[in-house]
Amino acid sequence: MRITLRVIGIGPGNPRQITLEAIDALADVDAFLVLDKGGDKHSLNAMRRDILSRHAAEGHRVIEVVDPPRDRSPADYDAEVRRWHAARAALFTDVLTHEVPDGGVAAFLVWGDPALYDSTLRIVDDLTAHSAMSLDVEVIPGVTSASALTAAHRIAANRIGEPIHITTGRRLPDTPAGADSNQIVMLDGDLAFRRTADPDDHIWWGAYVGTDDEILISGRVADVGDRIAAVRAEARERIGWIMDIYLLRKR
Amino acid sequence: MRITLRVIGIGPGNPRQITLEAIDALADVDAFLVLDKGGDKHSLNAMRRDILSRHAAEGHRVIEVVDPPRDRSPADYDAEVRRWHAARAALFTDVLTHEVPDGGVAAFLVWGDPALYDSTLRIVDDLTAHSAMSLDVEVIPGVTSASALTAAHRIAANRIGEPIHITTGRRLPDTPAGADSNQIVMLDGDLAFRRTADPDDHIWWGAYVGTDDEILISGRVADVGDRIAAVRAEARERIGWIMDIYLLRKR
Ligand SMILES: C[S@@+](CC[C@H](N)C(=O)[O-])C[C@H]1O[C@@H](n2cnc3c(N)ncnc32)[C@H](O)[C@@H]1O
Ligand SMILES: C[S@@+](CC[C@H](N)C(=O)[O-])C[C@H]1O[C@@H](n2cnc3c(N)ncnc32)[C@H](O)[C@@H]1O
Repeated sequence: MRITLRVIGIGPGNPRQITLEAIDALADVDAFLVLDKGGDKHSLNAMRRDILSRHAAEGHRVIEVVDPPRDRSPADYDAEVRRWHAARAALFTDVLTHEVPDGGVAAFLVWGDPALYDSTLRIVDDLTAHSAMSLDVEVIPGVTSASALTAAHRIAANRIGEPIHITTGRRLPDTPAGADSNQIVMLDGDLAFRRTADPDDHIWWGAYVGTDDEILISGRVADVGDRIAAVRAEARERIGWIMDIYLLRKR
Repeated sequence: MRITLRVIGIGPGNPRQITLEAIDALADVDAFLVLDKGGDKHSLNAMRRDILSRHAAEGHRVIEVVDPPRDRSPADYDAEVRRWHAARAALFTDVLTHEVPDGGVAAFLVWGDPALYDSTLRIVDDLTAHSAMSLDVEVIPGVTSASALTAAHRIAANRIGEPIHITTGRRLPDTPAGADSNQIVMLDGDLAFRRTADPDDHIWWGAYVGTDDEILISGRVADVGDRIAAVRAEARERIGWIMDIYLLRKR
């Protein structure tokens, strides 16, 4: 049995920020696979529905796959991770076998670009390693939330010739000096810049970028840090969830 | 006089890797401004023609603006840069005044995403600073060549939780330890990784990614370094120019 497995970047929130290539790639999909990971669902679910109703073929199927249970504090960590990956691969193989015809196409939709802080390509690698099916993997790039942020603020990510460091809130304190001239910070649950940045650094912050709820704040960290924290807390409370990202630039 | 100045990311080479938002943004443009910088023109010119003929309104104008002359070794470097920026802004103001009606739209097309190693936003900043016109700036994000590279190789840019460092060939030797787990290297005229990488590092290299000429090579640096150099030299010779990019991952 041979199946095409397509990983499609759908952009970071604005449904017009999808590419023609992604739209082409949606058109002939037999089954869309949705991994229910808990968390971030609200946003992706609504956007996914919107995108599928516009661009997917009539009669396409959406199949929610619930991650198999996992022991988070096993005696042998590596063995448990291997067991869990194999179990997940078996589950997907089962779904693909039943839901996609030989020669058919299954697809994952990915928020933003599939290469950036997303686990789908790792799952697909597991699947190709563990499955007896022949899988042709295709990846469609998307606009990243980093590009959406800088476009919304109408700024370049770098000053002339400078590097750009993309990191997470958790890893932000580990960025070595010399790599921190321009940092794009994602997956930051508690505004880690408040503990790492200099008062004179500049920040461009955005929440729900590209959506109707978009909020943008920028300025010196010393001037806008408190405001970002307050606005973030308020929005998160009001909307029920938040996704935000920022560029931090050394003075 | 009030003009909308739009900076539109058109993606990194594959004409289907343009977003719906960019297509919308092309539709009502009165004049497309092209900055003749020499260099990289071949590729951008052909793609620009293709994109404009598909998506721009009939009768749109394309205006080539030749950069004003610049003294590259002046006595007072800063003064000369300021003079040159002002001269360029005056030139653009002149073009806009004559070619775009009051309330109209002028646009720059940018390769990939406008935030990444591109000078257009800096020119626009100069223009808004120096010009007497009211300019409403809009920026449309695009798929980057980094995303096109990782999609073509079907890989994630980062291992779980790791940062990603985007840099240039020139700056590659300066990346501090601890920031170099995943490096995306652009604007590299002579494969700087050959002087900086460990033999066991992994490289995913791509040239003309997303175009009909696309070339992809990946493997251990020790195994594929020579081949990349040979293939790059051959392609550059045969095609007359090259654009390439790579991801370097520490073992
Ligand atoms: C799991 S990562 C996925 C990133 C995605 N693959 C991309 O290319 O942008 C989720 C993080 O992306 C950022 N993010 C994604 N979309 C965003 C948006 N529209 N506005 C603000 N941040 C966003 C946030 O930092 C969030 O924590
Ligand atoms: C001036 S920078 C512009 C980058 C662009 N703004 C982007 O978002 O990708 C030009 C560099 O981008 C990279 N590049 C752009 N398009 C590419 C492609 N299709 N294939 C390989 N490299 C590309 C090369 O490293 C090239 O030296």
